[in-house]
Amino acid sequence: MTLDTLPALDRRTALVSAFTVPKGFGDQTLRERRADAIELLGGIPDPSVLPARELAEATARVLSQPGQPALQYSRTEGIPALREWIAAREGVPVSRIVVTNGGFHGLALAIQTTVERGDLVAVDNPIFPLFLRGLELSAARTLPVRVGAEGIDVEELGRLLREGARPAALYTVPDFHNPTQGSLPLEARKELVRLAEHYGFVVLADNPYRELRFSGPAPEDEPFNHSERVIHVNTFTKTLGPGLRLGWLVLPDRLVPDVVALRSRQDSHSSTLVQGVVAELLTHDPGIFDATLDRARALYASRARALAEALEREAPGEFDVEVPGGGLFLWPRLRDASIDADRLAADASAEGVEYQRGSFFPSGPGTDAARHLRLAFGDTAQERLVQAAVRIGRALHRQRG
Amino acid sequence: MTLDTLPALDRRTALVSAFTVPKGFGDQTLRERRADAIELLGGIPDPSVLPARELAEATARVLSQPGQPALQYSRTEGIPALREWIAAREGVPVSRIVVTNGGFHGLALAIQTTVERGDLVAVDNPIFPLFLRGLELSAARTLPVRVGAEGIDVEELGRLLREGARPAALYTVPDFHNPTQGSLPLEARKELVRLAEHYGFVVLADNPYRELRFSGPAPEDEPFNHSERVIHVNTFTKTLGPGLRLGWLVLPDRLVPDVVALRSRQDSHSSTLVQGVVAELLTHDPGIFDATLDRARALYASRARALAEALEREAPGEFDVEVPGGGLFLWPRLRDASIDADRLAADASAEGVEYQRGSFFPSGPGTDAARHLRLAFGDTAQERLVQAAVRIGRALHRQRG
Repeated sequence: MTLDTLPALDRRTALVSAFTVPKGFGDQTLRERRADAIELLGGIPDPSVLPARELAEATARVLSQPGQPALQYSRTEGIPALREWIAAREGVPVSRIVVTNGGFHGLALAIQTTVERGDLVAVDNPIFPLFLRGLELSAARTLPVRVGAEGIDVEELGRLLREGARPAALYTVPDFHNPTQGSLPLEARKELVRLAEHYGFVVLADNPYRELRFSGPAPEDEPFNHSERVIHVNTFTKTLGPGLRLGWLVLPDRLVPDVVALRSRQDSHSSTLVQGVVAELLTHDPGIFDATLDRARALYASRARALAEALEREAPGEFDVEVPGGGLFLWPRLRDASIDADRLAADASAEGVEYQRGSFFPSGPGTDAARHLRLAFGDTAQERLVQAAVRIGRALHRQRG
Repeated sequence: MTLDTLPALDRRTALVSAFTVPKGFGDQTLRERRADAIELLGGIPDPSVLPARELAEATARVLSQPGQPALQYSRTEGIPALREWIAAREGVPVSRIVVTNGGFHGLALAIQTTVERGDLVAVDNPIFPLFLRGLELSAARTLPVRVGAEGIDVEELGRLLREGARPAALYTVPDFHNPTQGSLPLEARKELVRLAEHYGFVVLADNPYRELRFSGPAPEDEPFNHSERVIHVNTFTKTLGPGLRLGWLVLPDRLVPDVVALRSRQDSHSSTLVQGVVAELLTHDPGIFDATLDRARALYASRARALAEALEREAPGEFDVEVPGGGLFLWPRLRDASIDADRLAADASAEGVEYQRGSFFPSGPGTDAARHLRLAFGDTAQERLVQAAVRIGRALHRQRG
């Protein structure tokens, strides 16, 4: 042999070489912070509205079944009881449901099956930044599309398409957008589906906050469940707990075999135990899911209001604040252009409150995201939210000095 | 727009296009079988030796913790308590352990991070066929290496390397090989590591059966845990249950960041709940894992003996049968070259016993695998194993007519 042919220890696959080191969003765990810091960083559900006791009881029932099916292998698509419950809730045939290890896993499977390496992908601007990290699985290029008060701007998308843009896929969060909190109206959804079918791209509709609607009934019609060009991505993360790692895809029938083939080569199937426990939870008491949601919605609605009111009180006139109609984030906008938003985030950290600065969220130019703060209120008690507003007020005062 | 640029609905990524339709191994679920068929198909642990009650109790304890950490997000590498337990058992630093969703997931992560598309990968011959399916993630070419009575033939590998073969990786099952049941001796392991370090390839050592050793202590030294060129893949699948979907990688430090970066783009992390429950199970009663293994080993050893004896009794002189030293498979060899092994499998199915025919396992020419039967005895009671031997005897009798 010739030693000069010896592969270096740092040889990496092209797949892995396309991954960049995360900057901004998500790097807070590396930073110094005050011991008493209030963290408004992530879309984390509150433990008090997760059905922990009921999950433990469901586990006991599942693990007392003869033959322990929950401890054995199961089908890649997911166990029938869980797929059936999901399909009924989505209003689609069971054949179109594939169980995943959470919403992000669903997005990753969708990317790997529908986005070729180097493809163009239209994306929310501003965007949930971790999706861009997922897109690195396909080393994709991005086409930012403005997100307004009511979700992604389908008119702008239409203009870009008419001007010649040819994305392979489009990514958006249609309900209670992360970070901007708007929801896409029914007509815009239908137009988006029409554009996808006309121009031949795949819509990746990422919908983790859909069930966290603070008031009113959910829309009856969901165009994203009725097109060959849409993958509708959902999860139990925000409703039953991120730690389960359990979600699902509503897929066009044509894509089911590819997603199953990919998963059967990557991780076989989602935990049979977790699937069995959640299916048992949801079917043993058919009212439990909606009862859980009712408690969660009431809690998050009151926290959203409390935080918005406290901001107005502690930093009067400083922010445009809109109380969201659902979800886990407040997205206040600094009114005074002379306030340095990055310095504000640093001063807030020094005062003992951590949030995601808006400048982490643009996927391209043309947004005012950098003038915003993303304040996650899901897992922080009301009195701590009020204290966070006090600290943000102090941080502003430092700059006004 | 020009409609001729509209992507077809059946456009697929190169990744997915490389996947082939499974044939042979794994397609039994599609075949007709007798209602009373005895299935000796998969390496499935027996429910009676899985700690179901203890897992339910551990779940109750974990889900009563304040703040429900088991229902929340956790780090991609795995939760500290579980990584620490695994690291202590493997005798390596915690930093080298990444928790996975089972052994196959670990292999998939290893392939995606170390095997470039189109690379050459040396593989067991005969081989665990699903690994070849996993290799399709990298559209890899294979270099079959003979597996003898004591695992992969490291001398043959050395000869192939000296002749110029330059694989990027090598795949083998070192303990209680699937399907051939041999184990690689210590000296051969050391030589394999030397070859990997000299020629610069990565060893993927897939070790799900290691703990199912029927007698004697485990070897003290494990060269696969002490080289920059080895990824040691393991799982709780065969010991605590496949349905958990929980395993781990022992990685060289240099590969940890790439595997973590890949997972953070694919499925974020393994279920915090499953990790928490298993960590609680293993640490609440520090003797429980070995006690569980003791019961499993005794059961599988007695089933292996019973099946081997029944085959000798019901089909005297027909097979070379070696009772394995561990694992979940018997690998008897047909002595009479005039017996058609494929017809035997079909006749056995008609008699009501299903097994994997040996012809499913070669990765290349030069093995006598097609003359073997792979009989999985893990999850079949002794009297049913005896009945299976009776049916195989009848199937042979059909051919002797």
